[in-house]
Amino acid sequence: MFIRNAWYVAARADEIPHAHSGPPLARQVCGERLVLFRGADGRVAALEDFCPHRGAPLSLGRVCEGEIVCGYHGLRMGCDGRTVSMPGQRVRGFPAIRSVPVAEHAGFVWLWPGDPARASRDELPQLPWANADGVAPGWAYGGGHYHVACNWRLMVDNLMDLTHETYVHAGSIGQPEIDETPCQTRLYGDEVVTSRLMNGIQAPPFWQQALAMNGLPTDQPVDRWQVCRFTPPSHVMIEVGVALAGRGGQAAPDEAKAGAIVVDFITPETATTMHYFWGMARRFRPDDALLTARIRDGQGRIFDEDRALLEQQQRNLGAHPGRELLKLNIDSGGVAARRVIDRRLAAEAAEAAAAADAVPMPAVA
Amino acid sequence: MFIRNAWYVAARADEIPHAHSGPPLARQVCGERLVLFRGADGRVAALEDFCPHRGAPLSLGRVCEGEIVCGYHGLRMGCDGRTVSMPGQRVRGFPAIRSVPVAEHAGFVWLWPGDPARASRDELPQLPWANADGVAPGWAYGGGHYHVACNWRLMVDNLMDLTHETYVHAGSIGQPEIDETPCQTRLYGDEVVTSRLMNGIQAPPFWQQALAMNGLPTDQPVDRWQVCRFTPPSHVMIEVGVALAGRGGQAAPDEAKAGAIVVDFITPETATTMHYFWGMARRFRPDDALLTARIRDGQGRIFDEDRALLEQQQRNLGAHPGRELLKLNIDSGGVAARRVIDRRLAAEAAEAAAAADAVPMPAVA
Amino acid sequence: MFIRNAWYVAARADEIPHAHSGPPLARQVCGERLVLFRGADGRVAALEDFCPHRGAPLSLGRVCEGEIVCGYHGLRMGCDGRTVSMPGQRVRGFPAIRSVPVAEHAGFVWLWPGDPARASRDELPQLPWANADGVAPGWAYGGGHYHVACNWRLMVDNLMDLTHETYVHAGSIGQPEIDETPCQTRLYGDEVVTSRLMNGIQAPPFWQQALAMNGLPTDQPVDRWQVCRFTPPSHVMIEVGVALAGRGGQAAPDEAKAGAIVVDFITPETATTMHYFWGMARRFRPDDALLTARIRDGQGRIFDEDRALLEQQQRNLGAHPGRELLKLNIDSGGVAARRVIDRRLAAEAAEAAAAADAVPMPAVA
Repeated sequence: MFIRNAWYVAARADEIPHAHSGPPLARQVCGERLVLFRGADGRVAALEDFCPHRGAPLSLGRVCEGEIVCGYHGLRMGCDGRTVSMPGQRVRGFPAIRSVPVAEHAGFVWLWPGDPARASRDELPQLPWANADGVAPGWAYGGGHYHVACNWRLMVDNLMDLTHETYVHAGSIGQPEIDETPCQTRLYGDEVVTSRLMNGIQAPPFWQQALAMNGLPTDQPVDRWQVCRFTPPSHVMIEVGVALAGRGGQAAPDEAKAGAIVVDFITPETATTMHYFWGMARRFRPDDALLTARIRDGQGRIFDEDRALLEQQQRNLGAHPGRELLKLNIDSGGVAARRVIDRRLAAEAAEAAAAADAVPMPAVA
Repeated sequence: MFIRNAWYVAARADEIPHAHSGPPLARQVCGERLVLFRGADGRVAALEDFCPHRGAPLSLGRVCEGEIVCGYHGLRMGCDGRTVSMPGQRVRGFPAIRSVPVAEHAGFVWLWPGDPARASRDELPQLPWANADGVAPGWAYGGGHYHVACNWRLMVDNLMDLTHETYVHAGSIGQPEIDETPCQTRLYGDEVVTSRLMNGIQAPPFWQQALAMNGLPTDQPVDRWQVCRFTPPSHVMIEVGVALAGRGGQAAPDEAKAGAIVVDFITPETATTMHYFWGMARRFRPDDALLTARIRDGQGRIFDEDRALLEQQQRNLGAHPGRELLKLNIDSGGVAARRVIDRRLAAEAAEAAAAADAVPMPAVA
Repeated sequence: MFIRNAWYVAARADEIPHAHSGPPLARQVCGERLVLFRGADGRVAALEDFCPHRGAPLSLGRVCEGEIVCGYHGLRMGCDGRTVSMPGQRVRGFPAIRSVPVAEHAGFVWLWPGDPARASRDELPQLPWANADGVAPGWAYGGGHYHVACNWRLMVDNLMDLTHETYVHAGSIGQPEIDETPCQTRLYGDEVVTSRLMNGIQAPPFWQQALAMNGLPTDQPVDRWQVCRFTPPSHVMIEVGVALAGRGGQAAPDEAKAGAIVVDFITPETATTMHYFWGMARRFRPDDALLTARIRDGQGRIFDEDRALLEQQQRNLGAHPGRELLKLNIDSGGVAARRVIDRRLAAEAAEAAAAADAVPMPAVA
């Protein structure tokens, strides 16, 4: 159901403040309820949100000097999931609770729900607009976090087939040319890239605004591009933009285009709900905070339209369990991404089965 | 659970406008989620509310010139459940979705959830106050639509035993004489008719108002009648009224009585919810729209009392599954209607079993 | 899941008024939905909330001269669960509905969900501050009723380990000395008594106010006591108070202390919800109604903190079914109470199994 050996965004880094004391953050990722807080060294810890004493959620407690103190009877827990102390009690024999590997990267807190031994920073996605500490110099980033009541795979489908823009986002980024222009899908290992290039068209409202913000004319034909890049488990980066027609499209010089990267970090919460960390990274006017806010507001309204539709789609699929859906040409990006996901899920299932087999059986005399 | 080979009211005809474009109507009938809209010829179509492409509800889309366009990726569907077109896509091989037979009659849209081959206008109920196009000349009709969280059979029970009026509707149409007067139940094929005649009584508040509206004295004894007519699957028409005492009761001349037909179209939505299309048809002052509105308001308040009680009854029965209930003399109409329903359900179950048996088995050599 | 052969508080006595007619009270106890009302002799009856006619909740009906009249078709039911009459109907053959034994005691209505033959007033708990008619002379009592979405056993745990006060009630009755002082637990048959004595400490805010109300200085060291008494099925009385240090603690003369009894009647509603009848009984200034109200308000705020935590604990345990919890020194009161409860549940289960075995089997020839 979930790819487990992979990094997922669990939170914005600033949702978990550096503080001597304060409340921790509760979050559910891939079905696990977790509590997130910073240890004494400032690094984020993610533990099961379950006090081993009486099962109260640790997230109801408080962070004190890098440890979390249960809000019920004061059990004190370290970042490794081991009980440090409890009033009037020896705690050496207490069972540890699960600690999930954490990394900070690109301004986000990432979790690895699978085998801790395999978690490696090398597996974190390379992002042109970001580095380990946050947004890279010369770039601006704005975004938000939506809770969406649908299975995470429906969101991947949504983002890998942008023909939906014509129907779902008719008033902002949709335009008939998206329907009329076929897309091309290529695979690079597990990365799926699906591109649609629309040349000599009129820019839709959102991109007219972006051209204007960029000091470019809004009434001239443009070459528009959409390049969706899916990487497992569920991240989709979309290079989008328009250039004045005939200036080279995505390869045009900066003064002839307005482009950006739509960022979509999709994190399963349960089988039917997900966290959606969305945003947009851009290189033009990176210091213009007002522009960042305006773009974020517009993007938030657009993704709200997706949320409404996806939640109804989920509800409808739930009422028709097991029903087959179509796999079409226009879906080629989504179909390819689904195949990559299925392969990874099957591989993890096979590993789990092999591990179960490897448990020594009692010998039969 | 539901009688399927029968006509049910799904909507008022004016809930589905004649328009070149606009939103369709979503409605669930006998467990099926459907989308209703008018084709190019103005006739209503009822399709599964499920786009064959990615399972989005078609009801989130738009009607365009008699076809429905999915709001996700623009798949275009005809009234027969076949895909007409989709941007950038050949659709010939697309699976059709289910189309449910529809009829317009008496100002309502009727659906036949069962075998389409058996759907026939001849099976539509004959209604004295209505014809295929709506309300018949010389009659007035007013009514409403309630969503009720109970099994449809509880509503049939309610309407076939009006002794509940004394308790549930004490302030409007209830009166002790209903309890004191036995009822008579007769069967005509599958039609169940249960009658109660109360002669020489005082009219209760609702009927005093009706007498006054009709220009008749309200302080004289009246003969009151209640004739409940159940026909499968779940329709109950109730002839009700009062006449000045000794003038012939229901057969009295128009100038000595105030009468009407209470209309109850009961449509299962799920096992525990239903649509209730209720109303009142009358022949006196049929052009008085203000009177129609006043009657509808009063009736709406009364049926709201039933709704509140039936939802609690459903909740209570759900908490005591399998518990036996009583079948009493006062219930004779309800008991007879329940027998007709059970017979029809058993017949449909037997047919389904026979159809399953008729599937050819592989020969054993 | 529930101890059935025991008395539980179902309501305050004044929730069920002495009246010729009026609405009854609906309440669910140990999984059973019941309707409570007073018979003609003023004694409370508790019947299944289920009309044997069509299953409507009797609690939607009305009490009329000591009988309950169903709000649907007028069936009239006596305090013993037998139908007395019904309009137009002989009722002799009607099945009786279950009647649950009731006692009035200490201002509350108590129910015995188990075998009616075993119900005895002798089993009602002895309460120093109350008698059969209500609050005993010389005492004052104030309290409230909370609905809490947790299993009843979590509330017993909560009350038998008061170290939680330091964390959950830091602003009112909590103080670090509770953590630092070990408790002592003793068993007297099925009664579990767990005591904590803290001598020479500073009184926390709640007790400073109580000292002031009692005319005692608030800035001097005190000896504080907490004596929790659990009796099956689920009642916890807690003797609490402070005395000026060195004057004998709980045994100090009245003019040197402020003490009270915290009253906790815990009544299961379902497996995951409960009724909580909480209060405080005191002997100082018993006629000061304003003081009673102030104490009740403060206690209500404190118990609201418990409610919030317990509901989250229940939710968390429900998400980790079957997971083992710890049994610690500080829990000794809770651990002992849990053992008493488990023993009683096992004894009732064994009796039920023996009764099932005792059903004669048909002889095999």
